[in-house]
Order: sequence, then structure tokens, then C-alpha cells
Amino acid sequence: MDFDVSTLKFDEKGLIPCIAQSEAGEVLMMAWMNAEAVTKTLETRRVTYWSRSRQSFWIKGETSGHTQNLIDLRVDCDRDCLLAIVEQEGAACHTNRRNCFYTSVVDGTERELITPMKG
Amino acid sequence: MDFDVSTLKFDEKGLIPCIAQSEAGEVLMMAWMNAEAVTKTLETRRVTYWSRSRQSFWIKGETSGHTQNLIDLRVDCDRDCLLAIVEQEGAACHTNRRNCFYTSVVDGTERELITPMKG
Repeated sequence: MDFDVSTLKFDEKGLIPCIAQSEAGEVLMMAWMNAEAVTKTLETRRVTYWSRSRQSFWIKGETSGHTQNLIDLRVDCDRDCLLAIVEQEGAACHTNRRNCFYTSVVDGTERELITPMKG
Repeated sequence: MDFDVSTLKFDEKGLIPCIAQSEAGEVLMMAWMNAEAVTKTLETRRVTYWSRSRQSFWIKGETSGHTQNLIDLRVDCDRDCLLAIVEQEGAACHTNRRNCFYTSVVDGTERELITPMKG
């Protein structure tokens, strides 16, 4: 079946969440795409989100160099969430950590699992 | 630092997305939690979402038996997304597939990566 971006279920703001996962299986981050960002991601193979704070396209790594090259884009059963399998250059997180999910909740307290990358 | 659920950033509907990942690294599904669902999940160690369609708590697997036992709950850098590392019993997806992200977009067409589990 041909993929038609308009068959995805976008929320009332026209956005769909996209989880980025490395080939090794690490969940790197979650951000949002609109229909055009999905299309750009598929066409350019450079993962492109929609920045809700800046209200503009966000080609991941365009300023930081921490690009995400698309390996595979997957759609979930309800067509309201995406999973991008990516080749991540450097840190996915703006804190310079490899991934954004570095805080674990253990017995009611927060523990930092990973520290920022050097350099 | 003590974990305080009120420090999470919920959306205008009071919800936060939660990604469920197996210990083996498989992204199983994404669903939503409100503050009370987060608290219930931490207290009971049974992953509990908020069903947007039913507008009620959704203790994963309560009717299907396909429970998610919480191994670790992680908060992202912006505190607006959660990652639950879980022990998944059976299929995570309501289509009886192991995970919800079974559709891949390849060269403009959709391909089914996994088929429903038996039995």
C-alpha cells in the first residue's frame, strides 16, 4: 500500500509525536512532526521535527551537528505515533547527553543515569 | 532529589506521553498518563495509562492479561515525556502483535514487519 501522509492522525495542532531510537535500541528522544516534517524526513532522510517553541521546522543537528540520519520510519497501529530508527551523530539531547531519558525515578527519588558527553 | 509528579509538564489536557520499552530494547507502544496514572504506576509497579477514548484509567493488561510490569520509569530532559522500561507479558499491541510499530514506510509504500502472535 502506498504511504499517504494524510492518513496519519495528527492532533488538533496538526502534530504527531515521533520517537527516535538508535539502531542499537536506545530510545534517544521524542519530538513532534507536522505533515510536512514527515514528508521532509522521508525525502531527505534527515530527521526533521516541528519545533513547538520556535514554531518552525527543526532539522535535527542543523546547528549542533548532532544529526539523525533516517534508517527506517514506522507508524503505529493507531497511526497517531511514529518511530524513527536513526543513526545518531553525537548527543541526541540538548544537554549534550546521548539521550534525553537520563533521569530515573527510584524509590521516590530522582537519579541521573548518564552524564553529558565531553567536547 | 525527591520525585514530585507535579514537576512534570503535562499538556493542556493534563496528559504526558509515555513510551513503553522492553528490557531487550524493543519500543512497544506509546500511550498517555495523567498525574494520577504516573503515581499509580510508581506505586503499583503495574503500568497504568489514561485512556483518552474511554476517559478512564487503563491498567495495561487488566482485561487482556498483557500486563506491563514496571522495571524503571524515566523522565526526559524537558520533563514532558516519560519512558517506562517494562516486562511485557504477551503482546503490547491490541492487534495481538508484540509491538505497535509494525508498519514500516519503505520507498513510499507501507510494509508490515510483524504479524499477530498466535493463540
